[in-house]
Amino acid sequence: MNVIVGQSGGPTAVINASLAGVYEAAKKAGAGTVYGMKNGITGVLEDNLVDLDVVFDTPEKLELLKRTPSSCLGSCRYKLKSAEENPADYERIFSVLEKREIDCFFYIGGNDSMDTISKLSAYGKKIGSNVRFVGIPKTIDNDLMDTDHSPGYGSAAKFVATTLKEVIQDAMVYDMKSLLIVEIMGRNAGWLAASSALAKGEDCDGVDMIFLPEICFDLDKFVQKIEEKQKTKGNLVIAVSESLKIADGRYVCELADSAQEEDLFGHKRLTGTAQFLAEVCNKRLGIKTRAIELSTLQRCASHLTSLTDVTEAYEAGVYALNAAIAGKSGVAVSFERTSNEPYRCEMRAVEIEKLANHEKTVPLEWIDEENACMKAEFLAYAKPLIQGELTPIFKDGLPCHLRKI
Amino acid sequence: MNVIVGQSGGPTAVINASLAGVYEAAKKAGAGTVYGMKNGITGVLEDNLVDLDVVFDTPEKLELLKRTPSSCLGSCRYKLKSAEENPADYERIFSVLEKREIDCFFYIGGNDSMDTISKLSAYGKKIGSNVRFVGIPKTIDNDLMDTDHSPGYGSAAKFVATTLKEVIQDAMVYDMKSLLIVEIMGRNAGWLAASSALAKGEDCDGVDMIFLPEICFDLDKFVQKIEEKQKTKGNLVIAVSESLKIADGRYVCELADSAQEEDLFGHKRLTGTAQFLAEVCNKRLGIKTRAIELSTLQRCASHLTSLTDVTEAYEAGVYALNAAIAGKSGVAVSFERTSNEPYRCEMRAVEIEKLANHEKTVPLEWIDEENACMKAEFLAYAKPLIQGELTPIFKDGLPCHLRKI
Repeated sequence: MNVIVGQSGGPTAVINASLAGVYEAAKKAGAGTVYGMKNGITGVLEDNLVDLDVVFDTPEKLELLKRTPSSCLGSCRYKLKSAEENPADYERIFSVLEKREIDCFFYIGGNDSMDTISKLSAYGKKIGSNVRFVGIPKTIDNDLMDTDHSPGYGSAAKFVATTLKEVIQDAMVYDMKSLLIVEIMGRNAGWLAASSALAKGEDCDGVDMIFLPEICFDLDKFVQKIEEKQKTKGNLVIAVSESLKIADGRYVCELADSAQEEDLFGHKRLTGTAQFLAEVCNKRLGIKTRAIELSTLQRCASHLTSLTDVTEAYEAGVYALNAAIAGKSGVAVSFERTSNEPYRCEMRAVEIEKLANHEKTVPLEWIDEENACMKAEFLAYAKPLIQGELTPIFKDGLPCHLRKI
Repeated sequence: MNVIVGQSGGPTAVINASLAGVYEAAKKAGAGTVYGMKNGITGVLEDNLVDLDVVFDTPEKLELLKRTPSSCLGSCRYKLKSAEENPADYERIFSVLEKREIDCFFYIGGNDSMDTISKLSAYGKKIGSNVRFVGIPKTIDNDLMDTDHSPGYGSAAKFVATTLKEVIQDAMVYDMKSLLIVEIMGRNAGWLAASSALAKGEDCDGVDMIFLPEICFDLDKFVQKIEEKQKTKGNLVIAVSESLKIADGRYVCELADSAQEEDLFGHKRLTGTAQFLAEVCNKRLGIKTRAIELSTLQRCASHLTSLTDVTEAYEAGVYALNAAIAGKSGVAVSFERTSNEPYRCEMRAVEIEKLANHEKTVPLEWIDEENACMKAEFLAYAKPLIQGELTPIFKDGLPCHLRKI
């Protein structure tokens, strides 16, 4: 049995733990060669593969892999067209799979990656291929359907909440009126921005308001809420999602002067929301404002991952491997929660179509729109996902990583 | 013996460790009351003091204090005028010190705070006061004169280098031309931006170029260097100081459209340098660019401090207390390095004037201007300062802090 595994889409702090899970489970199951695709599906198209036995030649390297942010195999944003539109891609991919005698194909990624798995497994079925295709979810956005949550989210949420606790402490230092707006990632889904609510606890008042893309954004009301809140508290810290939208459908960041680029999937680059809002509040309210974009830090802070998340990411890789061996194809690993306290989650294999190309947003009933904060239901959902720490391996004062393959 | 201690200026991740050092050394020396100034010198002016025995009533709280970012006593940016200009402030301060029967006065801060200590000790000498005034340096900028380095710098440098290792790994993920510009704090001194050089190691190629305020910035040459570098490497990561200046003396961030505010000391708000440079490169070179500002995260990341730095910050507090007991006044704690390998540093008390109101910049001979990188001398200097970790105390998945007093 030969196996191939790839990573796609935006990186997370634990996407490599899933790679480690697939690899170790495959070896345990007696796999011959475990191939890694270099830069996702483009690696298959170009037959640019790597024998992972050569890369992970010591147990230490697998330990480092679990602590290495970003996608160790590289990633791509190559959008596989339908087999009708571009049959050449499919012929090329399946000829490489045949040449390399691949039995199982794993793709670790988000929405777009699940779409790739969906298309390949459908095509494989049509041509009578025996290759099994299994998707392993990862996304800090947590927007995949039909799974309780996605690996990558817990660690990003832990980083967001930790960082907010720290910047809140920092922002409180002067006795004056100030407004800090922190911009958090999440395309059209506010899961990660909502995790800012976790900062609140015995030792921290938390963020003062949270604005999610699930609620249509009203600039005037926003400024009004800030003004109102500041009557009772001088130093405000507000969390906003990068993908806030106003009533006419435009992103808030599009209201700023600076033009927005599009990425290779045609997605708009979302950045500048906090900066824009800080400038508006500074002008309208005459208060000192600052904007912070957590930017890519929130998806690659492997020095501060959630052990729960790392473990689940790894186990998802193992589960995928075993599902493929059991003959499943066209499926993705999904998490089903059976209990919040104590936290219990089971994995299952679900039809890939259920995960591909849909976006799961935060339930409106978990959002307190009036007070711009998260309800207890969200906290009960998110808290178990940030528990535990995987200690980095420090050398010379800095965490060690595995180099990109 | 009664003691008073305050914190001022911008926070760091270890400024509270110095507070812990002063407090514990004072109690050990048999001090009666150890007062904390609320919000720095303004706390003295308003007789807004707190008995630290009440706040630190358990050993656990002192352990938390060492792991709490920002200034636990609050801070201020109150600029004490000269005694000639504003005698009322001085009369008020000394009447409070007399009323509270204060013997020793400690101020933990940067340039401006050392200036406050300098003025108060000079005034005290003039009126025959017996109060001893001692300054304890702290600044992530590392720009204080007459000390090898300042507590706060090592931890900020460790955060910068760690974060850069992670975002570099993240930036390498796509096989395409891209430019990431990371903006690092440091007013007129490039020490912290230079610490980005520490990211380079066995497992990381490091940043591709570093631009410090010590070198006059030339926009055209900058773009040219990027273009040249990109001929051999697709994904570039560049570190820039927030306070880069062009030949006519303007900050690079002033070249952007957005106006810059001034803070209460009349310092310009430096922000937007990376964003501006990223936009210029995007327009001129037609490449995908991204800007990241590490913002206040780099000065408050107490979840990732340098144990060397925390220990020195604490010991500086202890040293200050003992210096005051020994009768010293108008002095600041200074570090003198006697060896890089093994790292050895001794403390001494130096005339406060030597630290106040001067800025220490990075020696030009440590900067490779042509290749925009740091020379070995800088690495030998900075490496010892980021060694070791102080593990956070985690509760429910997040690091615990002490609340602001």
